[in-house]
Amino acid sequence: MNKIAARLPSGMRDFLPLDMLRRQYVIDTVAKTFQTFGYEPLQTPILELEETLLGKYGPDAEKLIFYAQHPGGKEKLALRYDLTVPLARAFGLHEGELLLPFRRYQIAPVWRAERPQRGRYREFYQCDADCIGVAGMAADAESVAIVVAALRKLGFQDFAVKINNRKLLTGIGVYAGLSGQALSDLYRTIDKLDKIGPDGVREELGKNGIEAAVIDKIMNLVLSAQVADPVGYAVGAARIAQLQQTLADIPPAQEGLSELGEILANLQAMNVPGQHIEIDFSMVRGLSYYTGAIFEAVLTTGDPEERVGSVAGGGRYDDLIGLFRKESLPTVGVSLGIERLIVIMDKRNMYPASINPTVINVLVTVFGPETRAESMRVVAELREAGIPTELFMQDARLGKQISYADKRGIPLVAVLGPEEVANGMVKLKRLADQTEITTSRANLLGSIKTLLAR
Amino acid sequence: MNKIAARLPSGMRDFLPLDMLRRQYVIDTVAKTFQTFGYEPLQTPILELEETLLGKYGPDAEKLIFYAQHPGGKEKLALRYDLTVPLARAFGLHEGELLLPFRRYQIAPVWRAERPQRGRYREFYQCDADCIGVAGMAADAESVAIVVAALRKLGFQDFAVKINNRKLLTGIGVYAGLSGQALSDLYRTIDKLDKIGPDGVREELGKNGIEAAVIDKIMNLVLSAQVADPVGYAVGAARIAQLQQTLADIPPAQEGLSELGEILANLQAMNVPGQHIEIDFSMVRGLSYYTGAIFEAVLTTGDPEERVGSVAGGGRYDDLIGLFRKESLPTVGVSLGIERLIVIMDKRNMYPASINPTVINVLVTVFGPETRAESMRVVAELREAGIPTELFMQDARLGKQISYADKRGIPLVAVLGPEEVANGMVKLKRLADQTEITTSRANLLGSIKTLLAR
Repeated sequence: MNKIAARLPSGMRDFLPLDMLRRQYVIDTVAKTFQTFGYEPLQTPILELEETLLGKYGPDAEKLIFYAQHPGGKEKLALRYDLTVPLARAFGLHEGELLLPFRRYQIAPVWRAERPQRGRYREFYQCDADCIGVAGMAADAESVAIVVAALRKLGFQDFAVKINNRKLLTGIGVYAGLSGQALSDLYRTIDKLDKIGPDGVREELGKNGIEAAVIDKIMNLVLSAQVADPVGYAVGAARIAQLQQTLADIPPAQEGLSELGEILANLQAMNVPGQHIEIDFSMVRGLSYYTGAIFEAVLTTGDPEERVGSVAGGGRYDDLIGLFRKESLPTVGVSLGIERLIVIMDKRNMYPASINPTVINVLVTVFGPETRAESMRVVAELREAGIPTELFMQDARLGKQISYADKRGIPLVAVLGPEEVANGMVKLKRLADQTEITTSRANLLGSIKTLLAR
Repeated sequence: MNKIAARLPSGMRDFLPLDMLRRQYVIDTVAKTFQTFGYEPLQTPILELEETLLGKYGPDAEKLIFYAQHPGGKEKLALRYDLTVPLARAFGLHEGELLLPFRRYQIAPVWRAERPQRGRYREFYQCDADCIGVAGMAADAESVAIVVAALRKLGFQDFAVKINNRKLLTGIGVYAGLSGQALSDLYRTIDKLDKIGPDGVREELGKNGIEAAVIDKIMNLVLSAQVADPVGYAVGAARIAQLQQTLADIPPAQEGLSELGEILANLQAMNVPGQHIEIDFSMVRGLSYYTGAIFEAVLTTGDPEERVGSVAGGGRYDDLIGLFRKESLPTVGVSLGIERLIVIMDKRNMYPASINPTVINVLVTVFGPETRAESMRVVAELREAGIPTELFMQDARLGKQISYADKRGIPLVAVLGPEEVANGMVKLKRLADQTEITTSRANLLGSIKTLLAR
């Protein structure tokens, strides 16, 4: 076998242990939250048939799909591009075995051949929870509540979930006298509000041939009353009421506004803290398959480095499931942007001390061949009690063994020299503060737990 | 977007929620065990450069590799075939950031385009723990101890880990006067012992041109004394002593036997129960990269349906890491066959009741629009306490709501009718035995925990 240089494909990453422990912590915390809401895991394969994916994402996205085959293979395969189309495919295939409503989550990698750049990868994780089979707004509110619960469980306080409704956007277009392509263009332009600002949006709408007076009408509605603190149930209800008056004669707008009101009422009943809830008529979300409520979470941090865009998004998409079965089913779902969240959590170090920088709690030293068996007995005892423990295995003097523990970040060292072994004792050193105690074998577990607990 | 039939690629699987909960339980249990032994997670990407994989597995295996690319992509990519070559590649790439010894685990899918058949899949999970940087037998013993600990944690009692050493096999060949290709052929033939029996092995060795007298010598050594119960430290030590005498003049055999003796001593010091340990001179393991100790776990069940072959395997491979760096490093590792283990665990139903058949503990019913908010408040309270709870969201009479819970296997139903809501009470029904209690909102959590605990 020939030696070759160790290289990674572009846009792909290895996760070394500390990064993996952190990712695992994030994934476990979110999965636990999903389960608390009654969502259960589904896993689809990484390879799907080409035909399953093609025609679902639009021609630009399709160029980013990775294809796969094996020599002599007859099937045309592709690596999944998201978790939503595979959900629809899997539901279509297995619905006979599933009860409605079907609530599932999936936290798993997807592949897109984007041009690699800082913070953008070709293999990255998505983190989705979707509910198939409920038309009522209780399900939409549940999706929003999941986002709030998951972000809070991860330790975030400074975030808001913006909520809007596609039906209302349609209504605003109707109110402004737009339809068809002009209406889609309207969405696309409003979607740029964060990037190009209100004046930029006005300018682009003008270029699209919309009259200045109509632009004013649209902008007044979309931006609604600007207040210092846009979050909270009272602000949301006021915004809804304001538009309900202005758009009284436009049925899709009324429908969208009434759904928004219902979502707010449901969120309030579920004790979702109002400081995380914002009704925002300018929030559009790009994906074309949304049919009703849409939502998007952003950090409200003042730190420009932490302005990473949306950290969660979702909405109702009642037509997608119909691609793989006779009739569609009402569906609403949410996707947490865990790659972005992890970037912020790394920056803020939002991880528990128990995984930081290692899961190993104790290094048991070995004085020499004649005491090795005794050290091994101690190691076995600690592991039996569930304490992650490493046995030092190379030949080295005690000082070197302790400095190894220090370098690796292992908090406790258990020293078994000939004297300790002879007396049935163990010396414990806590490296952070040089606390040192000598304890009997009978009290070993208790002493270790005390030293680790501080 | 066109409708198409929902289909899976051949050899690929979806895992519906119950299967996923079970798989997750197995993966979490094994990961926890690995961590207890001081192994930490590493994750490599699913796509590797072709050059990383090619030339590592032999020409037959290479035919099974899946290749990947995206339109216009210049890199030649492949889906990983195992987790060991990616480990060597990742270690070569990141060793500057890693301390030795480097203990890592990875539990992740790999791809092989095998002909699909019952129980064999093209995307399946491997579950590896490896230790890079320790030459001593303490590391080999640790690998064996991990297998024993993981299988016991999963609930297995009826298994044995067979242990042998490649150096000893070489010594036996030397003793029989073989070398080079004849020696490799010897391994390959002995490896078939389970399939073709001792007579089949004798016949094949004869066909390979080995004299009958030499065959006798080999078979006597390899099969050693057949005893009724081959496991345990005393039996192992006796087998080693027997061969130490017979092969006294053959250095590689002595080296292998002495290593085996050391492993046994270490396992005993670590309190690994002897009933799981078997010295077996006929166990070869196919993979050519092993250089010293080899081991393999098998179930000792009497049920022929449960004879699934080895459920774990591993050994020392001191040369592989050298493929991606200047000099190699001593390495020993183990792979648990979790796909096979899951088949047995499904058959025996070895899963905790808490995931079986759902993680959802409570269904909260909704009587009608006017009580929905109160039901939602209860749901939020239970979720806040970490109890996985579903809110019934469709319009249905109470009987239908309860029968839904029953179908889904949710153990408890919380009923909030107008009377309960008016009095601040909740009625709890445990479906398994029709226990029914009515409790105040203040005592709700306690009552639920009591009803779930039985």
